[in-house]
Amino acid sequence: MLRSEHIPRATIKRLALYVQVLETLKREGAEVISSELLAKACDVNPSQIRKDLAYFGGFGVRGVGYYVQELITSIKQSLGVDRIWRAALVGVGNLGKALLRHQEFRRRGFHIVGIFDCDPFKIGEEIGGIEVICSKRLPEKAGELGVEIGLITTPPERAQRAANYLIEAGIKGIVNFAPARIAAPEHVCVEYVDFFHHLYNVAFNITLGQSQR
Amino acid sequence: MLRSEHIPRATIKRLALYVQVLETLKREGAEVISSELLAKACDVNPSQIRKDLAYFGGFGVRGVGYYVQELITSIKQSLGVDRIWRAALVGVGNLGKALLRHQEFRRRGFHIVGIFDCDPFKIGEEIGGIEVICSKRLPEKAGELGVEIGLITTPPERAQRAANYLIEAGIKGIVNFAPARIAAPEHVCVEYVDFFHHLYNVAFNITLGQSQR
Repeated sequence: MLRSEHIPRATIKRLALYVQVLETLKREGAEVISSELLAKACDVNPSQIRKDLAYFGGFGVRGVGYYVQELITSIKQSLGVDRIWRAALVGVGNLGKALLRHQEFRRRGFHIVGIFDCDPFKIGEEIGGIEVICSKRLPEKAGELGVEIGLITTPPERAQRAANYLIEAGIKGIVNFAPARIAAPEHVCVEYVDFFHHLYNVAFNITLGQSQR
Repeated sequence: MLRSEHIPRATIKRLALYVQVLETLKREGAEVISSELLAKACDVNPSQIRKDLAYFGGFGVRGVGYYVQELITSIKQSLGVDRIWRAALVGVGNLGKALLRHQEFRRRGFHIVGIFDCDPFKIGEEIGGIEVICSKRLPEKAGELGVEIGLITTPPERAQRAANYLIEAGIKGIVNFAPARIAAPEHVCVEYVDFFHHLYNVAFNITLGQSQR
């Protein structure tokens, strides 16, 4: 197996994008894709993509392109995401419930095995066969449930407290969907799914486009 | 008013992050913040933040820092996001419904004024007082509703079709929440809210952390 430590960080940042594009292509029935077309779909220049994918060398065929499925499998393996990851979700609001019902999580190997909330009216409720547990019990329950990743879907003002429980539970990776920044120690990886960042970018681009007319 | 055309693109990309951090600080009661603390909270180096915020010069006070509220207002003004933006949502699944109920959209000036779906069982249904309309009618309804931004929350295999309707409707900015890449002409700004990109990054970081132990 390809060892991910040998792949430069800059390449790794692009791999998740490549997987996404390759999965779209696969869904559309593509079995082989040329580096030019793949580069165009990813909005990356072709020489960059050839260099990045050279780490997965076996799947590029000169004059033909890349075998889509093989390339997806190889990238996922080297990213360490070709297995089941057990996640806990903190914050059972509308967004939390939507994520719990989101088909793609399970399909991509992310299984939500624990649901937490601090609202006494929500504790004990069942969602998709999983009981909502008091957030305070996260440190005690996370080990029992084998949780490795935390998803925060609380309102912004409760995101830090949710993060604290996850960190206390020894969780090393957090994806924060709440529109707030959170503080975490160095060894905990925090990723932000920030809707408003993207909305602001779009709004700004429209404004800029109008002012340039 | 500060003219956004004068601000470098690289700075603009960081402004949405600064707004997010500043809004977290404001919620916590901060009125003034030093550039060092702001830099730390944004995970950007202090000289970078001082340079970026020099474009909003009036609000930095030597030896004191920045006035939080004034800085938020000024950045939003220059990004052109200090007004109401009317958006259409395409795809009334779990995620679509969650976004429709998400308090923060309206609070930040993004009003969802049109809801579209291609499922005959969903068309005609009312969500938050807005009727679900057939996606095919988007080009005709968008102008009437004054829609400027499209939000795609369809399953991945229907994202491109939703985008086509939005583009046909003359919409210049799309935020795609579906886990699929979409093709769009140059003048349309497409942003991706890609949950799995972030989940893969977290999973990869955990894997890497374990292999380095």
